[in-house]
Amino acid sequence: MTDQTPTPSAVLTLSCPDRPGIVRAVADFFYVQDCDIVESHQFGDADTAQFHMRVLLRTGESTPGLATLRAQFDEVARAFAMTYELHDTAERPRLLIMVSKFDHCLYDLLYRWKSGQLKADIVGVVSNHRDLEPLAQWHDIPFHHVPVTPQTKPEAEAQVLRLVEELGVDLVVLARYMQILSEDMCQALDGRAINIHHSFLPSFKGANPYRQAHQRGVKLIGATAHYVTSDLDEGPIIEQAVHRVDHQAAVEDLVALGRDLESQTLARAVMWHVQRRVILNGARTIVFN
Amino acid sequence: MTDQTPTPSAVLTLSCPDRPGIVRAVADFFYVQDCDIVESHQFGDADTAQFHMRVLLRTGESTPGLATLRAQFDEVARAFAMTYELHDTAERPRLLIMVSKFDHCLYDLLYRWKSGQLKADIVGVVSNHRDLEPLAQWHDIPFHHVPVTPQTKPEAEAQVLRLVEELGVDLVVLARYMQILSEDMCQALDGRAINIHHSFLPSFKGANPYRQAHQRGVKLIGATAHYVTSDLDEGPIIEQAVHRVDHQAAVEDLVALGRDLESQTLARAVMWHVQRRVILNGARTIVFN
Amino acid sequence: MTDQTPTPSAVLTLSCPDRPGIVRAVADFFYVQDCDIVESHQFGDADTAQFHMRVLLRTGESTPGLATLRAQFDEVARAFAMTYELHDTAERPRLLIMVSKFDHCLYDLLYRWKSGQLKADIVGVVSNHRDLEPLAQWHDIPFHHVPVTPQTKPEAEAQVLRLVEELGVDLVVLARYMQILSEDMCQALDGRAINIHHSFLPSFKGANPYRQAHQRGVKLIGATAHYVTSDLDEGPIIEQAVHRVDHQAAVEDLVALGRDLESQTLARAVMWHVQRRVILNGARTIVFN
Amino acid sequence: MTDQTPTPSAVLTLSCPDRPGIVRAVADFFYVQDCDIVESHQFGDADTAQFHMRVLLRTGESTPGLATLRAQFDEVARAFAMTYELHDTAERPRLLIMVSKFDHCLYDLLYRWKSGQLKADIVGVVSNHRDLEPLAQWHDIPFHHVPVTPQTKPEAEAQVLRLVEELGVDLVVLARYMQILSEDMCQALDGRAINIHHSFLPSFKGANPYRQAHQRGVKLIGATAHYVTSDLDEGPIIEQAVHRVDHQAAVEDLVALGRDLESQTLARAVMWHVQRRVILNGARTIVFN
Repeated sequence: MTDQTPTPSAVLTLSCPDRPGIVRAVADFFYVQDCDIVESHQFGDADTAQFHMRVLLRTGESTPGLATLRAQFDEVARAFAMTYELHDTAERPRLLIMVSKFDHCLYDLLYRWKSGQLKADIVGVVSNHRDLEPLAQWHDIPFHHVPVTPQTKPEAEAQVLRLVEELGVDLVVLARYMQILSEDMCQALDGRAINIHHSFLPSFKGANPYRQAHQRGVKLIGATAHYVTSDLDEGPIIEQAVHRVDHQAAVEDLVALGRDLESQTLARAVMWHVQRRVILNGARTIVFN
Repeated sequence: MTDQTPTPSAVLTLSCPDRPGIVRAVADFFYVQDCDIVESHQFGDADTAQFHMRVLLRTGESTPGLATLRAQFDEVARAFAMTYELHDTAERPRLLIMVSKFDHCLYDLLYRWKSGQLKADIVGVVSNHRDLEPLAQWHDIPFHHVPVTPQTKPEAEAQVLRLVEELGVDLVVLARYMQILSEDMCQALDGRAINIHHSFLPSFKGANPYRQAHQRGVKLIGATAHYVTSDLDEGPIIEQAVHRVDHQAAVEDLVALGRDLESQTLARAVMWHVQRRVILNGARTIVFN
Repeated sequence: MTDQTPTPSAVLTLSCPDRPGIVRAVADFFYVQDCDIVESHQFGDADTAQFHMRVLLRTGESTPGLATLRAQFDEVARAFAMTYELHDTAERPRLLIMVSKFDHCLYDLLYRWKSGQLKADIVGVVSNHRDLEPLAQWHDIPFHHVPVTPQTKPEAEAQVLRLVEELGVDLVVLARYMQILSEDMCQALDGRAINIHHSFLPSFKGANPYRQAHQRGVKLIGATAHYVTSDLDEGPIIEQAVHRVDHQAAVEDLVALGRDLESQTLARAVMWHVQRRVILNGARTIVFN
Repeated sequence: MTDQTPTPSAVLTLSCPDRPGIVRAVADFFYVQDCDIVESHQFGDADTAQFHMRVLLRTGESTPGLATLRAQFDEVARAFAMTYELHDTAERPRLLIMVSKFDHCLYDLLYRWKSGQLKADIVGVVSNHRDLEPLAQWHDIPFHHVPVTPQTKPEAEAQVLRLVEELGVDLVVLARYMQILSEDMCQALDGRAINIHHSFLPSFKGANPYRQAHQRGVKLIGATAHYVTSDLDEGPIIEQAVHRVDHQAAVEDLVALGRDLESQTLARAVMWHVQRRVILNGARTIVFN
């Protein structure tokens, strides 16, 4: 769900070893701090014995500022060996979108951002081509042309990482960016980059998934949004969707039908990440919806 | 999700006016009683200002018996004006299934019961016809033939209500039972009877929904499982599903395609009810999955 | 399917009373005219005893021009009492899009047009507000501001119909146009106007369908694209789609989730109409996919 | 669609090199033979330059018997190098179902057969275990216990092939039969055996697909019905379906949720095959629905 509740003010996500008393300690802490729990999701993973939680809070009159709140929550976190994040919901994550020539995902993300659905700041569009520059410009988003050749790839990636640094980017979105990132780049962006793959992973990894799908004669095509890892197309999956096709569909038809799947699947993953609904759980994700 | 966690022992569902401190009080109570929270879902309805919660608990060595636990939880409940239920997960709800001549929903429910998916006791099958008697008998379920004519309807309903009483029935499942229940009967079974309607409600209420769907030329047909209320086909919806159809489908095709929808939609609703995942919320339901 | 077959050149759609020999006569005619049948769909409606067909043709060296072909096909048509249309596939239907303030459907249609998916000419955007003028302008589409008040409504509709006439419009697309068209306007556009309704019709006709859906507590929300008739929200359905929702979704969430449904459902209906895949069949449609 | 049209009498399926005049020749032939075309689907595969067609016919008073009709159609077939089949729709294919211990697919197929949805004769159930014998017996289907050990496998397969021969089996259905068939057996049953694999192929081939799906963290699980070939899980796909899951689902939950997917996907594939809607197209299938 999108966060429509009246003036929620902070969102907490946490992970820790599962043991009795976690919910009680969290509930207790925020009660004392005059914070209402507006929405709460939790999951204890029996496989890993880890506990994960997302809490949407409405602060009250006597709630201290976020810095103080964090400082005080640190004690709870220490007691339960938690990793956690506590953010003001008004804080908008900063996104950098990377594209090549396909425009459907970019078009869709810019529309969602412009219409207020995607509550983030898009601070730039990076592309190895100039084709999508007018689209970015019409939306008043700075466009960075970073061409890539086998020779210039290391420098090009360094340039993107500098942008990430300088612009204070929280999330890089690979919106049909057709270059394979180097292992170093993947590691530098670990947990901070979402890619859209145009197949129902793990089917049809690598190049030309629609051609592969056509050859295999599948009856549903798919798209997968996942965090980027150095293992190509193997990163933790955030969202997947499929569309029914039949024998009449040529490869070009699959490509055309797949566009909507790709745009929507990527958009959902990015919006959920921005709303801090996605928690990494090893090679998998938890999505608190 | 089905409850696969190792030996959960109790499930709590509660509803109360929303206000600060509920989760804290609940978490506190069970912590002190040596109960682990294995799974927890909650929902504060902004429209009604009511809070709803479902908690799956694993009892510990020093947890008292359920009767004591309830007696002690009564205090928390009183403090927050809660209505609640606390059940041993080993406790199997007792189901009475009502059918007429269509067998697909009965067949499906009996299969799920036999294979252990539906963790309930089916204590009887009631029908106004004898057609499905062999199916019930093969599953060793007592079959009750209760014919209905306009004249005998009040007596027939009384007979069913006596069965409900005598057999200690927790839930009546109308698995394509083709008689309209009287208002009195509906009230007697309020919140304890689930019906499957063969359309995507509120479309096509009443008789012959597939014929209505065909005439309207819809591109998806549906099925709806809902609690029975005296307002025909207007009860709180638990689950709905749809299936794509096209212009080639005659009414008979819709009927045939609809069978799978009806069986699955009803089965899901019944299983969720049995797992105490469904909470009535006025004219709507909350389903904690 | 989109038409990806190498250089198809003409598309025939026909309807006539069902009787033996139709397919034979059609196949015979085009064989003699050196036309290959690249794709063919047919449907004999047992309810109405009408036969409907769509044939995609690839013309050969000795095929005459379209005018001659039509003149000659008239004989076949007469013999079987057919209504038919025969078009060059290169011929692009002319679309006029009507909007109010919601931009998602317009944004989506313009994207599909710009990217070449929607093989039509968008000859204008009409709106009773000025909000979406920049969007139309950025796509170089003439924008017509036609305000509507109860007093000016007849004149406003007349103005739109003049545009339809002057611009040679084949199809009017109501892309969340929030004015109810008069009966006269509906009749003037009979079979030439497609509307998107933001519910799974026939559920939730009229105003505020998402609010109605929320109150009824449905578990799936939907969208319906249909031809406009003077009977509000009762026109022949072309396409429908649904999206799963749960108790957490407030009305605002349904509205947000519904946007994607509306855009895609409308886009599919418009693209199928443009590809001449949709045939009116009384109060229903045949969609040859 | 299921075949509901009044008294269709024969169904023709054909494949041949694509070239002008095929539809004309077929339409011509049946017109002369006093056969109405009730339903017709065709597909010219641009990749293979092969043409495929399925025609449902209603024979007339002067139509000859099927043997004569076939003898006469042979001429058309020869002229176009067609392979074809022409069957009376009243002719019921003979099915042999193979199972191990999982009962959901068998239960489902027997139900569909018993209720008249699956218009075939189930002539036997073969299993390497005795668990499902009562289920077969209650449906009055002969049960054959054919245990398999590494040592007895060749003899066991020979025994099944003898059954196929003696019982005149048209289609073998592997309804969660947990033994891998030998290459010889696969070849002996080429095009005559349908298997259900409990994943969305080509993802998660081989053993324990639900465990693989859980480890990969997919957001949709699937099932695939395909023709058996000697290349394990690589046979032509007839039907696929998926079901949404989330992080809460343990492997056991996936197994439970997958049962419905498997039953329905297999049932659809078998029913379509029985209705002669499925045509092999190299490593893929054409499904004329």
